[in-house]
Amino acid sequence: MGKEKQTLVSGAHKGLRPLKKTAHSRTLKNPQKVLRNLKLFASDVDGVLTDAGMYYGESGEELKKFHTRDGMGLKLLQAEGVITAIITMENTKIVERRGMKLGIPEVFQGARDKVAVLLHLSEKYGIPYEQMAYIGDDVNDVGALMTVGYAAAPADCVEQVRRVVHYVCKKKGGEGAVREVIDRILAAKDVQ
Amino acid sequence: MGKEKQTLVSGAHKGLRPLKKTAHSRTLKNPQKVLRNLKLFASDVDGVLTDAGMYYGESGEELKKFHTRDGMGLKLLQAEGVITAIITMENTKIVERRGMKLGIPEVFQGARDKVAVLLHLSEKYGIPYEQMAYIGDDVNDVGALMTVGYAAAPADCVEQVRRVVHYVCKKKGGEGAVREVIDRILAAKDVQ
Amino acid sequence: MGKEKQTLVSGAHKGLRPLKKTAHSRTLKNPQKVLRNLKLFASDVDGVLTDAGMYYGESGEELKKFHTRDGMGLKLLQAEGVITAIITMENTKIVERRGMKLGIPEVFQGARDKVAVLLHLSEKYGIPYEQMAYIGDDVNDVGALMTVGYAAAPADCVEQVRRVVHYVCKKKGGEGAVREVIDRILAAKDVQ
Amino acid sequence: MGKEKQTLVSGAHKGLRPLKKTAHSRTLKNPQKVLRNLKLFASDVDGVLTDAGMYYGESGEELKKFHTRDGMGLKLLQAEGVITAIITMENTKIVERRGMKLGIPEVFQGARDKVAVLLHLSEKYGIPYEQMAYIGDDVNDVGALMTVGYAAAPADCVEQVRRVVHYVCKKKGGEGAVREVIDRILAAKDVQ
Repeated sequence: MGKEKQTLVSGAHKGLRPLKKTAHSRTLKNPQKVLRNLKLFASDVDGVLTDAGMYYGESGEELKKFHTRDGMGLKLLQAEGVITAIITMENTKIVERRGMKLGIPEVFQGARDKVAVLLHLSEKYGIPYEQMAYIGDDVNDVGALMTVGYAAAPADCVEQVRRVVHYVCKKKGGEGAVREVIDRILAAKDVQ
Repeated sequence: MGKEKQTLVSGAHKGLRPLKKTAHSRTLKNPQKVLRNLKLFASDVDGVLTDAGMYYGESGEELKKFHTRDGMGLKLLQAEGVITAIITMENTKIVERRGMKLGIPEVFQGARDKVAVLLHLSEKYGIPYEQMAYIGDDVNDVGALMTVGYAAAPADCVEQVRRVVHYVCKKKGGEGAVREVIDRILAAKDVQ
Repeated sequence: MGKEKQTLVSGAHKGLRPLKKTAHSRTLKNPQKVLRNLKLFASDVDGVLTDAGMYYGESGEELKKFHTRDGMGLKLLQAEGVITAIITMENTKIVERRGMKLGIPEVFQGARDKVAVLLHLSEKYGIPYEQMAYIGDDVNDVGALMTVGYAAAPADCVEQVRRVVHYVCKKKGGEGAVREVIDRILAAKDVQ
Repeated sequence: MGKEKQTLVSGAHKGLRPLKKTAHSRTLKNPQKVLRNLKLFASDVDGVLTDAGMYYGESGEELKKFHTRDGMGLKLLQAEGVITAIITMENTKIVERRGMKLGIPEVFQGARDKVAVLLHLSEKYGIPYEQMAYIGDDVNDVGALMTVGYAAAPADCVEQVRRVVHYVCKKKGGEGAVREVIDRILAAKDVQ
């Protein structure tokens, strides 16, 4: 790997622990217990909370397409006392706006090291990594996915992500994948 | 359920009648008769009249994607004398514009209690709930769906909605699900 | 049918010839011959040249999503000397712009009577209906579809259209359905 | 073919070598070796880097929908030292913006003769055609596809393109087709 790429993907997954090269997703011994105890839910944006579309106009990126039922899911999760967070390498007012609308308390943009953000959140709220969930779709999410207790990915994630998550959604990013994970969390918490 | 969530979903479905926890959609004894006698058709917006996409730009939500054949369907329904209504928890000029374009007489935005809106419409037009249809996709639609005589949902509705509707569309929201229901109504009324 | 709907759908298909109530699409004896002799190709817009999406913003309809390969197809057809036309009941600058970009010589908007437009084109160019193709998706296209020599529809057309066309595309509107028809025309003309 | 069309499609594929009329895609003897040695990756825009949607507003084309994981792929490719290029017949600020965002060094718009662009790049970088990859979807890409060492197309390419490429993606344009090809290149280069 060249130097440039090292700055593209989260450096965090290099040092923390070795990336297991398994053919399949990782298996949890007791997923219901993990889901039930989750206290923080963090999500990537592009390709996870959106349909991966980068809608460009003459002045650059103009739109992101979020999903209404993901939004409802995040609000239901907050109502259960789960901390919600957004962690993205991109940096736009669009995400700021969506985060405000949904009342998401922790929005991190321009995050090149997503594990560092998880560490910060862990210290701020006193929540161990084991009680955090993260959903991501691409190589720069691998570090965060390896760190949390419950790692998920939308159906159309890249192969490197598929290998390391605990759950691959039936739905694609922007089509309700985030809600799919949230509904599993709420079901484990006996909310539904 | 926490207190906060109670304000998210329509409080109406708590008091009116108990939410039946059945695994499948509800079954009507004579659906053709119910459809034939319908006098009011109400629809949710996001995820029903739209593709569930929340298209955000720098200034917030900028676009909703409606479907042209849903629009034609609503106009055909009006031509048969059926009252058309839109009931949504959101509040945007976008919906106001679309409602105007389609000549929809009853547009309710910011509606936290959708059953209260149905009650208002029932009294205004003298139409009993049994002669109303409603189509919705998410947990905040359950109260309205339990209230009307004909309850429908787009193919991609949440599980809690699927359990309580009389008809689950083959089509997703924003892909003509509303037209699909309207075509069933028009067929029952012997229009087609 | 009430009075209002009569003004919604093209009145033309009432008088010209009776609408055959057959279960299937109409069959041509020699479709290759019909395709080879076509001199004019007319298309509806919403749901045919677009994905049926009505993208609304605060000021009303803001976007239509056309398809790049449909555009290339229309240019290839013009290069073969086939007259291209757009006939739509809607009226927007959006369609005017797309028509200009593709060099379409005949753009008719606000067309409530699409058969009257075909009559006008027939007289202007001296082309009989038998040498015209039309593609449409909804009830207001039935008159035009019954009039032309080659009638086509996108995969997601309404049932009433499916019954009367000679060809139902494999592709949906806005996903290359128009190019699919054009490729059949070009193949019959031995261009490909 | 009429004169007008000759200016539409790249003139290059006429003279350079005869277009083989085979029913299937072309086969490479050793695709892994070809992929491993690639030094330049060029892509068409509409229908390849985008979903083929031409999003029109009142002032003409307003948006193109790119894909976030294609963007990551192009950056990963650059990190490996592969030259990235965009070659399109269209001419918009939108593409200029997307190219800038992704740090693509070679962006050619208004390119009627795509093979001439490949020739220019070959001379500028001293890279033979055999070490170039190109991905395109329509008839005006055939010349470029016949010229390069590795020719690919998105799943929804036209038949004339399908016949001449070495690889047809599982994914459609704008849904990650470009990333699919890039992941094959990176795998051959032992990066993944």
